[in-house]
Amino acid sequence: MSEASLEALIDALRRLPGVGVKSAQRMAFHLLQHDRDGALRLAGALRAAAEGIGHCQRCHTFSEAQICRTCLDPARDARQLMVVETPADQAALERTGSYRGLYFVLMGRLRPLDGIGLADIGVHPLLERTADGIVQEVILATGFSAEGEATAHVLSQALKARGLSVTRLARGVPAGSELEYVDLSTLAHALHDRHGLG
Amino acid sequence: MSEASLEALIDALRRLPGVGVKSAQRMAFHLLQHDRDGALRLAGALRAAAEGIGHCQRCHTFSEAQICRTCLDPARDARQLMVVETPADQAALERTGSYRGLYFVLMGRLRPLDGIGLADIGVHPLLERTADGIVQEVILATGFSAEGEATAHVLSQALKARGLSVTRLARGVPAGSELEYVDLSTLAHALHDRHGLG
Ligand SMILES: [Zn+2]
Ligand SMILES: [Zn+2]
Repeated sequence: MSEASLEALIDALRRLPGVGVKSAQRMAFHLLQHDRDGALRLAGALRAAAEGIGHCQRCHTFSEAQICRTCLDPARDARQLMVVETPADQAALERTGSYRGLYFVLMGRLRPLDGIGLADIGVHPLLERTADGIVQEVILATGFSAEGEATAHVLSQALKARGLSVTRLARGVPAGSELEYVDLSTLAHALHDRHGLG
Repeated sequence: MSEASLEALIDALRRLPGVGVKSAQRMAFHLLQHDRDGALRLAGALRAAAEGIGHCQRCHTFSEAQICRTCLDPARDARQLMVVETPADQAALERTGSYRGLYFVLMGRLRPLDGIGLADIGVHPLLERTADGIVQEVILATGFSAEGEATAHVLSQALKARGLSVTRLARGVPAGSELEYVDLSTLAHALHDRHGLG
């Protein structure tokens, strides 16, 4: 395939996460052979998003406006602030339908081995954000990987030092699981975090 | 995620083959968070390819020019014409470095169950192409799936009826394979297609 614009398209598709040279080639051929409209629509969507989407000044999630719709929603409980790593995590928590407070999106987590420290994730903006006199509880919903746990630990200390109530999502047995198939560490945490009934 | 331009980007990415909603979301977030240059470059490459790439009038492969570089290359042997299903197959055969003839790209194969018949793949253009008085051997390099085999069979009959020499890629044991792990059908074909030594 020696056509320059085809080579350029395959190269550009390869920059997408999880796309190798074979997939990029398959995508390019598919678009050219069956879906040129889709190619033009994707081109327009990429440009519109790359040029139009910034970060909400209050919660840092992706937003076209300076303040996102969630932060502006008067029906949300501004006394609760949930801290998540990414907009994808925020979307997953929203889908549960069981949280009505606000969010703060770190856009990352501590990754000391990669040189990602406190200054690179939004810790100082988070401390500012929680100093509004309205936030009472900060719910740490970073992941349960080693890095997510470390991030929660560091944030917890900084937030508690400022007199805020800090909680963490529970670890435990996933819904629908048989105990015999759950890993030991998860079972141990489920036992430790057991709660009273009735 | 309620931002319209983000939703539009995720929808457009989902039209790529092999990309589900989770991958599309991950791609969109990655581009917005880490690679806006990549997003703009991909947008430009999509538009340039969708608007600039057509099909070679002689071999039907993707080409910016009316006749592709391979068809114009005076170093290729115009007496041999290899028939392949797709530009990806053509690229794979070129990578072997062991073919110096020309190509004809069907841009598909017979798929009777999906209503893809002779008129939908380039059979009539192929018959025209082989009537140039120069082509002597047509090498059928469609796939060895049931559909690829059926396509080769139909083409073979039409081409032989016009007095052309028609050959087919050999089936056999893949290079590097231990016989005990090769499927029976492949072994049977390898035995049937055995060739003399020296
Ligand atoms: Zn916001
Ligand atoms: Zn050509």
